[in-house]
Amino acid sequence: MNAIVSALAVEVLPPSLKDNTGDLDRLKKGLAAQLAGQMPLVPFSRLAKVADRFRAAGFKGAAIVNDLAGGCELVDFLAEVPPVLPAMALDLGTTHLEAQLIDLLSGEVLARADLENGQIRYGADILTRIHFAAKDDGLAVLHNEIIACINRLAGELAAAANLPVAQVRALSVSGNTTMVHFFLKLDPHHLCREPYIPMVNAPDPCRAGELGLAIHSAAPVFMLPSVGSYFGGDLISGILASRLDQQEHTSMLIDVGTNAEVIVGNSEWLIACAGAAGPALEGGVARMGMRAGPGAIEHIKIDPDSRAISYSTIGGGRPKGICGSGIIDLVAGLYLSQQIDIRGKLRREACGERLIEGREGVLFVVAPAAESLDGEPVALGQVDLDALMRSKAAMYAILTTLINQVGLSFEQLHRIYVAGAFGRHIDPRQAIVLGMLPDLPLATYEPVGNSSLAGARQVLLDKEARLRCCALIKKITYIELNVNQEFMIRFSGSRFIPHTDHTLFPSVPYFEGE
Amino acid sequence: MNAIVSALAVEVLPPSLKDNTGDLDRLKKGLAAQLAGQMPLVPFSRLAKVADRFRAAGFKGAAIVNDLAGGCELVDFLAEVPPVLPAMALDLGTTHLEAQLIDLLSGEVLARADLENGQIRYGADILTRIHFAAKDDGLAVLHNEIIACINRLAGELAAAANLPVAQVRALSVSGNTTMVHFFLKLDPHHLCREPYIPMVNAPDPCRAGELGLAIHSAAPVFMLPSVGSYFGGDLISGILASRLDQQEHTSMLIDVGTNAEVIVGNSEWLIACAGAAGPALEGGVARMGMRAGPGAIEHIKIDPDSRAISYSTIGGGRPKGICGSGIIDLVAGLYLSQQIDIRGKLRREACGERLIEGREGVLFVVAPAAESLDGEPVALGQVDLDALMRSKAAMYAILTTLINQVGLSFEQLHRIYVAGAFGRHIDPRQAIVLGMLPDLPLATYEPVGNSSLAGARQVLLDKEARLRCCALIKKITYIELNVNQEFMIRFSGSRFIPHTDHTLFPSVPYFEGE
Repeated sequence: MNAIVSALAVEVLPPSLKDNTGDLDRLKKGLAAQLAGQMPLVPFSRLAKVADRFRAAGFKGAAIVNDLAGGCELVDFLAEVPPVLPAMALDLGTTHLEAQLIDLLSGEVLARADLENGQIRYGADILTRIHFAAKDDGLAVLHNEIIACINRLAGELAAAANLPVAQVRALSVSGNTTMVHFFLKLDPHHLCREPYIPMVNAPDPCRAGELGLAIHSAAPVFMLPSVGSYFGGDLISGILASRLDQQEHTSMLIDVGTNAEVIVGNSEWLIACAGAAGPALEGGVARMGMRAGPGAIEHIKIDPDSRAISYSTIGGGRPKGICGSGIIDLVAGLYLSQQIDIRGKLRREACGERLIEGREGVLFVVAPAAESLDGEPVALGQVDLDALMRSKAAMYAILTTLINQVGLSFEQLHRIYVAGAFGRHIDPRQAIVLGMLPDLPLATYEPVGNSSLAGARQVLLDKEARLRCCALIKKITYIELNVNQEFMIRFSGSRFIPHTDHTLFPSVPYFEGE
Repeated sequence: MNAIVSALAVEVLPPSLKDNTGDLDRLKKGLAAQLAGQMPLVPFSRLAKVADRFRAAGFKGAAIVNDLAGGCELVDFLAEVPPVLPAMALDLGTTHLEAQLIDLLSGEVLARADLENGQIRYGADILTRIHFAAKDDGLAVLHNEIIACINRLAGELAAAANLPVAQVRALSVSGNTTMVHFFLKLDPHHLCREPYIPMVNAPDPCRAGELGLAIHSAAPVFMLPSVGSYFGGDLISGILASRLDQQEHTSMLIDVGTNAEVIVGNSEWLIACAGAAGPALEGGVARMGMRAGPGAIEHIKIDPDSRAISYSTIGGGRPKGICGSGIIDLVAGLYLSQQIDIRGKLRREACGERLIEGREGVLFVVAPAAESLDGEPVALGQVDLDALMRSKAAMYAILTTLINQVGLSFEQLHRIYVAGAFGRHIDPRQAIVLGMLPDLPLATYEPVGNSSLAGARQVLLDKEARLRCCALIKKITYIELNVNQEFMIRFSGSRFIPHTDHTLFPSVPYFEGE
């Protein structure tokens, strides 16, 4: 463990005629023992401040030292070691930002906060934003928006921990490649164009002041590196958090959002790929879809015989929408109760009164208007179902393409780690029924929570994690699915429940010929 | 040799679906072999530019890499290796700035320029400026002034070499400790107060843009480190240039300006001291004193018997003043022709018509009004003579105090290197007559020119010189003369021509009892 910022207690003999060493040189010398002889650099922007404060404190106190790739940096001097040394870990998501304030001294979480990504107003999805960035000031607008959001989050975290935001001494950022480009004001033009090349995979740490962040201007900003345009730092975080890269057994890590990113490997090798899974699994686009939050139906049960529906909402109140896990429960339940066919089409005769006509076609009502929060029925349309079918097909095609590339079968996997809200909320059994995840014993599946945030936290606290993620990206072989023929074939085969080849899903009932 | 900035030719395979490495990561990888595996850092301020230009150049061209203490830095990318890679070497003097534009590729001097230090309007000497800096905006005013002067010099150099000033890729600064404080906008308060402590001896390199310099914003600014408040980077330059620190024999280096700075040593040890020599030797304060330049009387001969005077001016024209070397010639000549006594007092009866009455007392006329450039006689006053006597006494006292500290005699010195305009222009024999320099064979004395500028040039071109000067400052023992009792006693004994103890100067005629 070696946090990205340290407060090193130091006391040196005051200057005298017998020792006229300059103030900063004296301080550096005093620190050398604690830094294994390494001489910290003092950036020009901090030169006068550090020297002034060191002298004002009477040549003893605590030196604030940033630990960076190129060496360490002396950026401040305090009269004594502070009670906490706060740093911000950030999961920089396309739709959502989630952050924690971490005490670098104790490792404790001091505060948590989250926020919708303010860039959404310029484009709900990444691609729209990339196009927006190509306009006149587009990139600057997106950059400023994300900086403003992070500043707001930082302000909330600091307020919750009852300290000034300028005392936040470091920031780690775990995000997809495009978000990191926006964050650094880098042109994302080539990210979405063959051969899909980022401007940078592993940006060197910069200082918060350079980005206009409200935290301490000399705070180092550490970004989790990416492997490709579609395999970002958030996934590297996932590897750190799941320790996929440190195990003898071969395991898999799945992160599902708008894209599905998957990595398989062990301590010897790592192979990754990513593909568009469609937004259906995020609940972002389905008519009644919503993020997992109060009022979202997160679980749905349909009795296969009576077709009676029961559901539970997050927070326990009346429903106003359905989140991803609810949608997967619903569709699996609809299949097992034979209210949809193997192509995912609603069977009018089986659904009966649950079906209503909406503006965009037929809808399946989960919660009638009388039960819902806002007096509107909570329902899923055929359009949404079709989207989900594409998503689940993409997902399974990605997994099979990848496992096939490495010459393994799913059964040989020790674990399948499932990251994010998807991993936290879905029931793997239901995903198996849909043919989205392979038909394996449920114990194989292990949710790892917001591993993007977990990785961001790790790199703040642990030097080994910082070094490891930079070494990791050189170790990962990335397969581009956007141009992969095998993927396209497998995608077609996966557009049935559970699959065209139902021998792949022996545990799932197959309703032949319907 | 390893210049502070290099243009490294590099060509890499363009990105493809088979190799989706990010642009900057690809470039860094391509450079690794030329950088002995070192990974260059890309500062945030250059991130987008380097990546853009690398791609625009078709993934081949020349990477501009700064070599700094902490590692190397990738700051630009050009379509091809440029014909020259200009950098500015600067002697940052209290009264005068002197600079050269160096081609880092060939080592050639592309242009030279010099300029009066614009800070003079806020104080002719360092102490006045330190006091000025304590006023409201004083430090900012002095800082801005020196930056403006450097920008003007840089502009002149660039114009002379026919290239844009923003193409100057590095700056090295060799100056006294106070000037470096002003340059970096550091409070000089403690420099002139016991125990005379700089805020920093060895500032880490910064970037030109951080200081508001007009050269390339990413140009590294390397400052020669100091040993103490009165032993600055200009002296470290002198050591580099004279190679005092690399010789088996013990030698001495003397740099005389307003202060006299002296260092004695060899490859094993180095001991230094500095003391106020008074401005007389710079020609800065004497009534007719002037810097060595056109119209300055630089050499004077007085026939010891006839007392006839002949002189030569720089440029060969009519005289308008006397520079330091002329003043030393004059006073030595006046002594040998017995027109002044051993206390340096003008002997009215011996000087005859050469004496006139000025507003501030009696003056000795060197060039009558009819011969001078502006119709005013060029003359030296008793006041000036008294100042010179103090200066020469200080000088000799400094030298003897130092040589005594190391337990040597002057005769044991292999060489005495004399730096600066003083070393270039004075005749050591005349300085010996005055009792300013020890009575040694003239071959012992070796002028080293503007060694401050020479050192600045070396650190631009040679990595070993950069490392050496940082190692040097740890090796030098500095003796503070401001509080040295021995110095005060020796000073009193030196206030006669050549000395109270005339056995110390066997080669100089002694006019007893006069």
